[in-house]
Amino acid sequence: MNDLRKAVLGSVEKLFERKQFKSLKDLLSTMEPADIADILSEKPPAERVFLFRILPKDIAIEVFEFLEGSDREELISCFTDHEVAAIIEEMSDDDRTALFDELPAKTVKRLLYHLSPEERRIANTLLNYPDDSAGHIMTPEFIDLDEPLTATEAIERIRKSAPRKETIYTTFVVDGERKLKGMVHLEDLILASPETTVKDLMDELPVYVYTETDQEEAAQTMSKYDLQTIPVVDRERRLVGIITFDDILDVVQEEATEDFERMAGISPVEEGYLEAGIFTLTRKRFTWLIVCIVTQVFSSHILERYAFALESIVALTFFIPLLIDTGGNTGTQSATFVIRGLTTGEVTREDLKRVVRRELVLGLILGAGLAVLAGLNAMIMGTHAAVALTVAISVVGVVSLGNLAGTLLPFAAEKFGIDPAVISGPLITTVVDVLGLLVYFEVARLVLGLG
Amino acid sequence: MNDLRKAVLGSVEKLFERKQFKSLKDLLSTMEPADIADILSEKPPAERVFLFRILPKDIAIEVFEFLEGSDREELISCFTDHEVAAIIEEMSDDDRTALFDELPAKTVKRLLYHLSPEERRIANTLLNYPDDSAGHIMTPEFIDLDEPLTATEAIERIRKSAPRKETIYTTFVVDGERKLKGMVHLEDLILASPETTVKDLMDELPVYVYTETDQEEAAQTMSKYDLQTIPVVDRERRLVGIITFDDILDVVQEEATEDFERMAGISPVEEGYLEAGIFTLTRKRFTWLIVCIVTQVFSSHILERYAFALESIVALTFFIPLLIDTGGNTGTQSATFVIRGLTTGEVTREDLKRVVRRELVLGLILGAGLAVLAGLNAMIMGTHAAVALTVAISVVGVVSLGNLAGTLLPFAAEKFGIDPAVISGPLITTVVDVLGLLVYFEVARLVLGLG
Repeated sequence: MNDLRKAVLGSVEKLFERKQFKSLKDLLSTMEPADIADILSEKPPAERVFLFRILPKDIAIEVFEFLEGSDREELISCFTDHEVAAIIEEMSDDDRTALFDELPAKTVKRLLYHLSPEERRIANTLLNYPDDSAGHIMTPEFIDLDEPLTATEAIERIRKSAPRKETIYTTFVVDGERKLKGMVHLEDLILASPETTVKDLMDELPVYVYTETDQEEAAQTMSKYDLQTIPVVDRERRLVGIITFDDILDVVQEEATEDFERMAGISPVEEGYLEAGIFTLTRKRFTWLIVCIVTQVFSSHILERYAFALESIVALTFFIPLLIDTGGNTGTQSATFVIRGLTTGEVTREDLKRVVRRELVLGLILGAGLAVLAGLNAMIMGTHAAVALTVAISVVGVVSLGNLAGTLLPFAAEKFGIDPAVISGPLITTVVDVLGLLVYFEVARLVLGLG
Repeated sequence: MNDLRKAVLGSVEKLFERKQFKSLKDLLSTMEPADIADILSEKPPAERVFLFRILPKDIAIEVFEFLEGSDREELISCFTDHEVAAIIEEMSDDDRTALFDELPAKTVKRLLYHLSPEERRIANTLLNYPDDSAGHIMTPEFIDLDEPLTATEAIERIRKSAPRKETIYTTFVVDGERKLKGMVHLEDLILASPETTVKDLMDELPVYVYTETDQEEAAQTMSKYDLQTIPVVDRERRLVGIITFDDILDVVQEEATEDFERMAGISPVEEGYLEAGIFTLTRKRFTWLIVCIVTQVFSSHILERYAFALESIVALTFFIPLLIDTGGNTGTQSATFVIRGLTTGEVTREDLKRVVRRELVLGLILGAGLAVLAGLNAMIMGTHAAVALTVAISVVGVVSLGNLAGTLLPFAAEKFGIDPAVISGPLITTVVDVLGLLVYFEVARLVLGLG
């Protein structure tokens, strides 16, 4: 944090302790809402409610939008429905949808009842779009302009409609049926000569997304075209809302967290790790763990089938962890490249052959290098040279198979319309275990002349 | 992609085939530079150069900024130094730094020589800030205003200085020593009554970052405060540049990719997976694989130490993969929550105790559930009940240890100032292997009365 900001935070504490609430209120009014939200979240509930109540109303609403889920719920529980309704009536429509997503359905129903008919209609419309869709996270608070307006008139219109709008920097032109006709940047209105018309200044082929577009795709589109604001249209191309860059940063972070979780074999935890209860976390983690432990039936059976080999040369057992972990590790490495590439768009379905080729080459190089180390490891332990050779050869096989599985599984998921990130590390590890053990014992039979 | 955009892409192809280059040029001029860049990247080099040359110069520069690294390098290699210099002279300073980061040092040196003295000085300054620092990705192309200006005068000033500036939506006030005094939003200038002064409208306590601040922290700060633009200051708080939201989206994606790579035990691949050569990828993947395979010496030694147990009851071997994979999987799940939480700021060092407590509870719940499945698995295979019991008890132990290791290792890294994401899955797997095998054989000794 900047030194200046730290000094201000210190002053807030002092004024609070000395109960100089008038000065405290004045000081808070100069601060960033995000910082006030930080201060509130560190206070015990009673003080938090008190501080919140002394904030000027417009700042209070902004602070409320910046608070974390659980802090917000606690505040709401301390207020009367009437007080809460006054806040949510004034919130941005998109922030309100996000708040309702967090609250219990019963509370939402009660709060909706206290909203004005107009805001209630908007809130219901947004809540009804599927979770994680562009429609669900958009806000209908955009400014529209008419084509014949001059730049000067347009700026005047923007000035008048600015309050309660999400952004004044990007405005829109729609036709008689409310279909999106163009997008106008305030920058162009400011720089144009005063008599230029909106028609001449507007971008007639603006990039847009549909209400049902996935929020991740909306984020990628905004990132691709460097857009601050993207229009959201319905099936008939009628303009129904906008998404702004601040929401998109949240989406990108959220989606990355989900992918991290999926890759570790966890179903996405929507409420965040610390907010989620033990029961939720158990449920989110159990599914893949169960799949993997049940699938391990195969590795157990393979080992049982080759029990004769393990009984005659117990040293073969010593290298099982080394072998299966190495395969799992390289497989996860390949999968990470492919999954991340498919997610960010760097890798596409057309790259399959190229990726398989390079992963096979990489598998051989990495496998050869690791084989030498694994063989040396076995020799130093005093294992028979033939066993060391078996281990070394198997490492090359298991690394190549790991790379191949790590490459093919995410591409297969993508092909079947499944998010490639569900191809988690645990799944790859289990698949490569089974394949790796088969390779190991077949190599052992050949090299050691067993069975 | 929108239907309209698809139709336009079709027209581009047709005009190109029919060699109607005048119309093609006019059509391209109406398109988004990002889409033109897409078209170029799909063309063979000769056609790409041709299409690029028919673009109007201002669009050509924007398109160039949107092209991928390898496509850009190819274009550059087809142009004379003079032509390239004309392009990079006009590029945004931050995009030029990004381009220079990708090009070989020799090429950069040659191109710098062709720049105007002013642009060369700027380019050198930015290149000299550490990679991944705010200074390295910022641009000095901001607009500054004086406090006494009225809103009307300020807007006039902005109009005049707009060309070649990165944004007109956020402007700054500096004092005589160029120290940052305030930040002014165009929105406030537009909405204010014409005679209000900049001094009255400016935010006197703007959020800023230092030139040496890590780009990830800069991104988090912008996200926290919902900023479109953040000022970058030097140690003396002199304003030296700005970072805008479009750069930050790239940073967030880039940093997420790096964390994905680190967690899979890969050193960050800066040039992107498809752009990187086989040799680079080998190097980036080898380090952790080697560490892990060498560390497997411990698991081999443990198995050797308990060879007597494995020789008397070979069935113990059958469940080694099940056991170590389960520990590795649960450990990676816990680590993913902690690493991602520490990265996004949801989890802080103060949460250590709370996280350890809940991970231990989770370990017992998950362990108990998985133990039942693992025990059943063993029973169904016809293994002796005592071995099945050994496996079941060990699963509880290994899952709890996995959770504990997955929690403590990232916190430890954070404490020692290391990015917690370096606590990769492979590392946790190896640590849990060793601990899990020890648990397994000690349980076996007790339950089966061995040794």
